Amino acid sequence: MSRKLRMGMVGGGAGSFIGDVHRKAAAIDGMIELVCGAFSSSVEKSIDSGIALNLDKSRCYGTFEEMILKEKNLPEDVRMDFVAIVTPNHMHFPPAKLALENGFHVVCDKPITLTLEEAEALQSVVETRGKLFALTHNYTGNSMVKQAKAMVAKGEIGVVRKIQAQYLQGWLSTSVEKTEQKQAAWRVDPKKSGIGGALGDIGTHAENLIEYITGLKIEEIAADLGRFGEGRVLDDDGNMLIRMENGAKGTISISQIALGEENNLGIRVYGTKGSLEWYQENPNELITRWLDEPKKIYTPNGNGLHDEALEVCRIPAGHPEGYLEAFATIYKNFAMHLTAINNKETIEKIDYPTVEDGIRGMKFIYAAVESDKNNAAWVKIDQK
Amino acid sequence: MSRKLRMGMVGGGAGSFIGDVHRKAAAIDGMIELVCGAFSSSVEKSIDSGIALNLDKSRCYGTFEEMILKEKNLPEDVRMDFVAIVTPNHMHFPPAKLALENGFHVVCDKPITLTLEEAEALQSVVETRGKLFALTHNYTGNSMVKQAKAMVAKGEIGVVRKIQAQYLQGWLSTSVEKTEQKQAAWRVDPKKSGIGGALGDIGTHAENLIEYITGLKIEEIAADLGRFGEGRVLDDDGNMLIRMENGAKGTISISQIALGEENNLGIRVYGTKGSLEWYQENPNELITRWLDEPKKIYTPNGNGLHDEALEVCRIPAGHPEGYLEAFATIYKNFAMHLTAINNKETIEKIDYPTVEDGIRGMKFIYAAVESDKNNAAWVKIDQK
Amino acid sequence: MSRKLRMGMVGGGAGSFIGDVHRKAAAIDGMIELVCGAFSSSVEKSIDSGIALNLDKSRCYGTFEEMILKEKNLPEDVRMDFVAIVTPNHMHFPPAKLALENGFHVVCDKPITLTLEEAEALQSVVETRGKLFALTHNYTGNSMVKQAKAMVAKGEIGVVRKIQAQYLQGWLSTSVEKTEQKQAAWRVDPKKSGIGGALGDIGTHAENLIEYITGLKIEEIAADLGRFGEGRVLDDDGNMLIRMENGAKGTISISQIALGEENNLGIRVYGTKGSLEWYQENPNELITRWLDEPKKIYTPNGNGLHDEALEVCRIPAGHPEGYLEAFATIYKNFAMHLTAINNKETIEKIDYPTVEDGIRGMKFIYAAVESDKNNAAWVKIDQK
Amino acid sequence: MSRKLRMGMVGGGAGSFIGDVHRKAAAIDGMIELVCGAFSSSVEKSIDSGIALNLDKSRCYGTFEEMILKEKNLPEDVRMDFVAIVTPNHMHFPPAKLALENGFHVVCDKPITLTLEEAEALQSVVETRGKLFALTHNYTGNSMVKQAKAMVAKGEIGVVRKIQAQYLQGWLSTSVEKTEQKQAAWRVDPKKSGIGGALGDIGTHAENLIEYITGLKIEEIAADLGRFGEGRVLDDDGNMLIRMENGAKGTISISQIALGEENNLGIRVYGTKGSLEWYQENPNELITRWLDEPKKIYTPNGNGLHDEALEVCRIPAGHPEGYLEAFATIYKNFAMHLTAINNKETIEKIDYPTVEDGIRGMKFIYAAVESDKNNAAWVKIDQK
Repeated sequence: MSRKLRMGMVGGGAGSFIGDVHRKAAAIDGMIELVCGAFSSSVEKSIDSGIALNLDKSRCYGTFEEMILKEKNLPEDVRMDFVAIVTPNHMHFPPAKLALENGFHVVCDKPITLTLEEAEALQSVVETRGKLFALTHNYTGNSMVKQAKAMVAKGEIGVVRKIQAQYLQGWLSTSVEKTEQKQAAWRVDPKKSGIGGALGDIGTHAENLIEYITGLKIEEIAADLGRFGEGRVLDDDGNMLIRMENGAKGTISISQIALGEENNLGIRVYGTKGSLEWYQENPNELITRWLDEPKKIYTPNGNGLHDEALEVCRIPAGHPEGYLEAFATIYKNFAMHLTAINNKETIEKIDYPTVEDGIRGMKFIYAAVESDKNNAAWVKIDQK
Repeated sequence: MSRKLRMGMVGGGAGSFIGDVHRKAAAIDGMIELVCGAFSSSVEKSIDSGIALNLDKSRCYGTFEEMILKEKNLPEDVRMDFVAIVTPNHMHFPPAKLALENGFHVVCDKPITLTLEEAEALQSVVETRGKLFALTHNYTGNSMVKQAKAMVAKGEIGVVRKIQAQYLQGWLSTSVEKTEQKQAAWRVDPKKSGIGGALGDIGTHAENLIEYITGLKIEEIAADLGRFGEGRVLDDDGNMLIRMENGAKGTISISQIALGEENNLGIRVYGTKGSLEWYQENPNELITRWLDEPKKIYTPNGNGLHDEALEVCRIPAGHPEGYLEAFATIYKNFAMHLTAINNKETIEKIDYPTVEDGIRGMKFIYAAVESDKNNAAWVKIDQK
Repeated sequence: MSRKLRMGMVGGGAGSFIGDVHRKAAAIDGMIELVCGAFSSSVEKSIDSGIALNLDKSRCYGTFEEMILKEKNLPEDVRMDFVAIVTPNHMHFPPAKLALENGFHVVCDKPITLTLEEAEALQSVVETRGKLFALTHNYTGNSMVKQAKAMVAKGEIGVVRKIQAQYLQGWLSTSVEKTEQKQAAWRVDPKKSGIGGALGDIGTHAENLIEYITGLKIEEIAADLGRFGEGRVLDDDGNMLIRMENGAKGTISISQIALGEENNLGIRVYGTKGSLEWYQENPNELITRWLDEPKKIYTPNGNGLHDEALEVCRIPAGHPEGYLEAFATIYKNFAMHLTAINNKETIEKIDYPTVEDGIRGMKFIYAAVESDKNNAAWVKIDQK
Repeated sequence: MSRKLRMGMVGGGAGSFIGDVHRKAAAIDGMIELVCGAFSSSVEKSIDSGIALNLDKSRCYGTFEEMILKEKNLPEDVRMDFVAIVTPNHMHFPPAKLALENGFHVVCDKPITLTLEEAEALQSVVETRGKLFALTHNYTGNSMVKQAKAMVAKGEIGVVRKIQAQYLQGWLSTSVEKTEQKQAAWRVDPKKSGIGGALGDIGTHAENLIEYITGLKIEEIAADLGRFGEGRVLDDDGNMLIRMENGAKGTISISQIALGEENNLGIRVYGTKGSLEWYQENPNELITRWLDEPKKIYTPNGNGLHDEALEVCRIPAGHPEGYLEAFATIYKNFAMHLTAINNKETIEKIDYPTVEDGIRGMKFIYAAVESDKNNAAWVKIDQK
């Protein structure tokens, strides 16, 4: 029996960017409804935000603790099924842990936590409590990313030799954190962001995309981080060499001071038989190159796609899907899993990022920061 | 006081393309919830579809008449606010008329009706009943289209001289209507589509986009239609000359046999001071050209946008919005209007296509068909 | 035995655009050397131009008559082999005729002559005198155009159904002919341009490209021409419907008032099995679409090309060739033909535009103008 | 007084790629003529090659020594002015030295020599003999590269913070050096290429482009080179971190095993006020981004260019210039310099790469190889 899953949200009050993204992404496929939230640390603001979202005032909470404990006591057919956490990084772990411990599943924004220790502690809670945990590495929800992953997995491009990934933004080119820009302030503050600045905010997306598409782990990294913004203690730029577990080599370049770049996440993967190229800002094209054939461009729901890509396409070819749709695919796959569990059914494939992706991201941040401290010396990323 | 608006749907059962699009589009912004539907002419199929959509069985109806009359009798705080009509063209008018006459607002897919007479009759009902009527010319919901319209309106490109519009698809290149392809069958059947084939299905989008962006009416048209698919009686291709009310000239080319084209709607507008270029498949770029300056590319939420564009952008620059988001903007603007009415507030701007756009579309179809019958002679489009 | 061919030039003095293009194009492949010229109607200017081109003063002539007659009397191993004519349209016929009658081969810019009568007279001279005549429809020299033509000829895209061609420029958006712009002045003057303005200058390129690639003749045309520039008597814009000899339909849109467009010649050809798309401003890509395969992009010297394309590529894949190289291919193919004749060898394939292309161009101009005079009524293009 | 400069060539016999490129590039602007050559180490082949190039047999030499010494004894108005060296790397130094010592100017392909020692020795000869020496870093001849350099120099993008350069090819993805592929064999042979493989062949172009556009020197480099092709001792891939003299950071990625890439040289430069992006495969666009304005695209001879760019554009906007044209600009600027010297005139600006660029390139190769040997440790590039 099918029903909409009930979502409670932590963070994402009025003026939030990512909270609104989560809500829209969760709504698109009609499988999830927002039923409650602790949208702000101010009770009043939380209630105002909730009412603007057409929620019942009684389910707009002042703290996540209140939300989790009160919802737990609601009738089973009323209370939330899972918690979506959309707060700054330092506020991921506490609500995630509490939610899991009280029987709620969790969807959490990335990076998973403030520290690696927290991430590992959270992993332990997830395993102990047997609840679902999804991490919104949203870009892996794109159909063209699914196609890329499938092509690598099926051996179509042969052995991967070279990887280039980039995630370039320019919005921290000036000292916007000294203005009213709420998004900027916490991102440059190590108490709220952790030891990585751009590394955590966007670098983990690049790292996740590389490992997702290639199915290979980054083995070691040499990172030269920049702190170009006046007074910044966290990185706002980074250039990295990487070596993959199979001997492939590559680069990752990230930046939030790449002036004029909007949200330029991209990846190129070169193999012994073919190569792949994809850019998030133009997500409806997967460019492929071949030894003996002309360049081929795959498109969502277009010709020649593998099932892995087709099954996440929503609309006919030529009708572009964007950022929200890819984000929604994470929610959709999570919802399908949770619905299956609710219905005591088994599910064939679980395709959304989990706590393991979160741990990988934190190890990536830690290795990059350590390398940078040692003048870009190579640092192994723990593969446990 | 804010609440979600309640939507009932006519058509859009399992396997439908456009019904699903309407549901997703209505859901994105969290302002509308689907509460009931007459999804299919088969009661059983309608119920199955509704249940799959997490609806209560009691509100899955076998006919639109049943839906409208039963919903009318539900308590005011339960019954649907408006009807979304997503059936083939010949089934637009009857439910729209009945809904309006029973006090429901209407959102309807395009083209507005099967015939111009129906369209004019519907216009009369809309006016008499004082209910809202939105026509989903969804492409005008794109932020870059809003920017283009604003730039023309503010005189930035000067006097429009030349227009080129195209809407090219290839999905009817082969005789798919003779296969199980449900989308194709009704579109090539004049009883269900009306006198226009590609003209109604996609041509009206091109016509609407031209008049929306330029603020100018097409005055006359010379159309050479093609019926390339074996046995087709309706056009599956068309090449047209147009003359605008201000003396500008141009072309419209449409096709559903342009093999390999996915959904290539595009427009170029050349003025005396600047020019504009936009393609639906790459909707996050508005290309502009100038007398003395280099080409400039505008992007959603990017630098230099007018308020008209900014206010429909949902996410930061570089996070691509696609087909569903533009479609959602039609629903959002309609929902804002309806909410204002419910709250007895006035609304500053009404920005969604209405019955007038529907009439224009039908007149365009009729003029094109008449011109084609007369070997592409010029036919005036009635400007009343 | 191989030697450089000796070229004499009519027109192309200092400040000329197209004369310089012809000289560079003729030079690239090392098969042709400029030996003399009547560069200007002023003797002094002709000599100055010639000296700046490192010519001997004795071979810088004041008139084309002088050049032709004096060169004729030079020793066979010194005198020019052929004449390149790069004057405004009204000055194509007289030097071409005189050169041919005096035993010189001719390369001539397009459109071939001022009038259709002249073109037919010239055809007769060419046939009578048995000399070579090349018309510089330079865009057909692009390797990607050769590839497109070969693909159509081999049936790879099936039966052609739809064609869209455009040639859009913006340089006459303002009244530049009233300034010192030498290029503009003669182009808007019917005494120098003939009955077509943009039609002759760029429209013939579009027409030639269509017929070259598809191997099909345009059968009839309905043309709506514009004269947007103040006081212009010749067309500076045109929108046309076309019907091909095989039943295919399409449009041609040309303009010199498409503000901001630089030199946007493009073509799309849709068949029953595949389709082709090419733009002169991005000449190193041929975009192809297919029923069951993803879009494929061919590149010069890249994978999958036919011999017809490969044999005109000069440099490895990824090294872009441009306008001059395509132009040079016309000269190269002409030079190979002439060298073969000089060596009394036979040549397998003659691949450059000839007087027949010139006649087609003139008939196209005449038909378009006649159609326009009759409010865009259909006019057959004489297929003789 | 103007005359064509006379060029003798070393290398570039039948089947050569780069020799043909040099000849075409030298020919385009009509300022240079090929008069003699030592095209091959086989006398017979040299003569055959020369005759195919329409040279007099008497000036087709068996060795460069013979050419230089015999040409020296020809009358001043007959003998070559300069030598173009288009041999594999190990054969750059000997003919360059001999030519300079015998009073001839030199144009030489890159990298300048086999070793840094040779490069420094050559520098000394150039300085002692007072002859011109041009190194064909051809990509700096592109008008959009000139525009980029001018924009940086004028401060338009502010202080440079981040640089990303890439030069990606795929032609060594398989072991083509074991086939008849003549281009591949010497490039993977350290005796002929020197200590750098891809580093010398393409890496120096990337390095030169960075320093040319930004006007900044690379201060240190950390390089992780790959040798993916079976049995290769020289690098066929490289990923590098760079730090510029002003504190900017960046990456260089080069490859000849990036399967499917043709000749993808590209650069992005991010400053505090603006940023620049350019790709060799699409050379007619310079993409620029700005703090408060939309993205602007500059084009050759298009709107808004600086004189530095305009003066190297040959044809009107929209007529694409390619690889050969940029290459020709190096020859043209060299020829203008040499002509000025011949005429005892002074020249305002010398804009072509010289022996200093060659030294920089060798130091770059050496530093990268040393870094790679030390597991990608930072190595300073000597700035003398």
